[in-house]
Amino acid sequence: MTARFIALLTDFGERDFFVPSLKAVIAGINPEARTIDITHEVPSFDIRAASFILSSCYRFFPQGTVFLAVVDPGVASGRPILLAETKKYFFIAPDNGLLTLPLRNEEIVGLRRVSRSRYWLTAGRTTFEARDRMAPVAAWLTLDLSPQELGPSVKNYKRLKIAGPRRPGHEITGEILYVDKYGNLMTNVPGSMIRAAGRPASKKRIVLSLGRTAIGRFAASYADVRGDGPFFLVNSQGFIEIAVREGSAAATLRAKSGDPVMIRFPR
Amino acid sequence: MTARFIALLTDFGERDFFVPSLKAVIAGINPEARTIDITHEVPSFDIRAASFILSSCYRFFPQGTVFLAVVDPGVASGRPILLAETKKYFFIAPDNGLLTLPLRNEEIVGLRRVSRSRYWLTAGRTTFEARDRMAPVAAWLTLDLSPQELGPSVKNYKRLKIAGPRRPGHEITGEILYVDKYGNLMTNVPGSMIRAAGRPASKKRIVLSLGRTAIGRFAASYADVRGDGPFFLVNSQGFIEIAVREGSAAATLRAKSGDPVMIRFPR
Amino acid sequence: MTARFIALLTDFGERDFFVPSLKAVIAGINPEARTIDITHEVPSFDIRAASFILSSCYRFFPQGTVFLAVVDPGVASGRPILLAETKKYFFIAPDNGLLTLPLRNEEIVGLRRVSRSRYWLTAGRTTFEARDRMAPVAAWLTLDLSPQELGPSVKNYKRLKIAGPRRPGHEITGEILYVDKYGNLMTNVPGSMIRAAGRPASKKRIVLSLGRTAIGRFAASYADVRGDGPFFLVNSQGFIEIAVREGSAAATLRAKSGDPVMIRFPR
Repeated sequence: MTARFIALLTDFGERDFFVPSLKAVIAGINPEARTIDITHEVPSFDIRAASFILSSCYRFFPQGTVFLAVVDPGVASGRPILLAETKKYFFIAPDNGLLTLPLRNEEIVGLRRVSRSRYWLTAGRTTFEARDRMAPVAAWLTLDLSPQELGPSVKNYKRLKIAGPRRPGHEITGEILYVDKYGNLMTNVPGSMIRAAGRPASKKRIVLSLGRTAIGRFAASYADVRGDGPFFLVNSQGFIEIAVREGSAAATLRAKSGDPVMIRFPR
Repeated sequence: MTARFIALLTDFGERDFFVPSLKAVIAGINPEARTIDITHEVPSFDIRAASFILSSCYRFFPQGTVFLAVVDPGVASGRPILLAETKKYFFIAPDNGLLTLPLRNEEIVGLRRVSRSRYWLTAGRTTFEARDRMAPVAAWLTLDLSPQELGPSVKNYKRLKIAGPRRPGHEITGEILYVDKYGNLMTNVPGSMIRAAGRPASKKRIVLSLGRTAIGRFAASYADVRGDGPFFLVNSQGFIEIAVREGSAAATLRAKSGDPVMIRFPR
Repeated sequence: MTARFIALLTDFGERDFFVPSLKAVIAGINPEARTIDITHEVPSFDIRAASFILSSCYRFFPQGTVFLAVVDPGVASGRPILLAETKKYFFIAPDNGLLTLPLRNEEIVGLRRVSRSRYWLTAGRTTFEARDRMAPVAAWLTLDLSPQELGPSVKNYKRLKIAGPRRPGHEITGEILYVDKYGNLMTNVPGSMIRAAGRPASKKRIVLSLGRTAIGRFAASYADVRGDGPFFLVNSQGFIEIAVREGSAAATLRAKSGDPVMIRFPR
């Protein structure tokens, strides 16, 4: 049997005992499971950033990977733990919207509430559900436990309200979903919406507006650009991203996650 | 044979070449050993924080795990390297008090000074004992080397002076042992001391004092609490912890590790 | 077959989806490959620091390790991806000088440009070459793919201009190559140059000058030193390092990478 992976995403940070506790529990149940850290530096309680990061990398993982994602302001509040099964993957997360973006592109074949305590570390109350409930369940899934052992099917799950990009007339409107460590501004506008507009030849005349700034440089890559000003490009995820070469677009433009963007085509 | 784990805890940070050097040495000796990072972000030279973090997660690791813990202001000073063997685990650390808290709850079956150079990377002087002496010894233990090959038995080890919680009359006195990344204040008062006081029904009338602040809210979980003020609860480690919902108790209360706490019961 | 390792060094940070994307791609191609993080906290675009960190730990890794090092201001600019094969290791990096320091001490047995798209994730343009080109190539090398499948031989590679230490007369001149997280200043002067000067007995009279500061304490180890002032020693990499006990030499001396140092011997 090939190796089975558990990918971890949390806002726990890496300085405390939280993350190693999860890995220890997993190693105790399936020593052959292999954990891969996505990140543990999600801004505290920022479900939207967590959803974006997970959606930006999950599809590169091998079939059968279990994603364990925990950004959970409501821990121990009684909100359910969600298990989503898709054609290739398992996703475990609090049912608080975290799985919104990754599940948008996945065909869901099973959706359950993790509620049966049999495979938990402890059946009692806990303030650390990631260690005591979610990590053990993730480990058991890598041992091919059937998801139906873990809890009953549910019909729906909580979704974040993220304004999908729209295209009224000669404009595309969207928003900034994420600011990466370089200060690049990642939007929810797919590059394909611009291509679908059928004007690749005139791409230099497309203008992106962010607050009061109008950006007229639509580049093919970071290295394509000379000089200091902001530009935009289709990034490695296939979405429109605003960048400054060897600088921070977020600082230069005083922009942040949630800010609206508008892309105008020439008439 | 099942996988064998080496859990690493240091104050080396993750930006330099220190941590990967340890992992490289381990991989060279036993490529099948699996390293798990506890943390490398212990505040520089903070032996007490290291002891707390290790004590808060070691017991979730599988039997046979080797813990390699290095916070070592006295590196190359001639202070001994300690190897403690318990029923389930091995602990390797400088003999500077780091193992105080984890060993409090463990039955020690062997205590040695790591002094024989045969299994070291180099027999000569070194300013990087973690790489040249401790990591190789940890790797050899995962290959079932007998601890007695590593150095002679010793009778004692250095302990940190941490005031155990006391209960004179209608009060419990203790102290803050650790501040986590959320600003939660973790004390050394076990929740069982409150339960032993036999007043679970009146828990709302228990008051925790920290400096000039009296906290009257004793919650069952973070999610149990409404509003902004501080509260306390029995945390996932079984100890009294002071928290502020979606905020920092350390900042709100201007509290830090070492500060005394007092818990008063109603008469 | 024994485990095969891929060691990762980048300036991507650990908060975004960049690093897990590399690991996911590797796991998809060779689930048995084992990744070890060197660091992902290289200062953004600092090729020189990356070269230093890699040179300071690569030699502790097992034979056959593939080093994947990405600090790449020129990503997608058309600069080549370099594959260097030495007697023990493979190194993959942008051809921008990053491999300067590690390759100084290695016997190169093959030098190639990674240009054939057959083993890439995608043959098309990409702004994330580390994920789409370098990571897959690293994974295939752990499956014993022949390097000649990856691209043609090249004769040379870009090198950083780092002034080697020189010894005109009674002085050694060099420079600071790296400042570690403690603020220790690591120079490019090997301790062997001092030993070669044949004055080990008089080492206390050797003086190191850094800017306007003259440092007269040449210690055997950190623990050897009493008091607060700066001192220098031969560090665990075999080079002269300037340190302050339990403090930051960089802050105390207001020094940084690139600053010149001079070591004077008594006549």
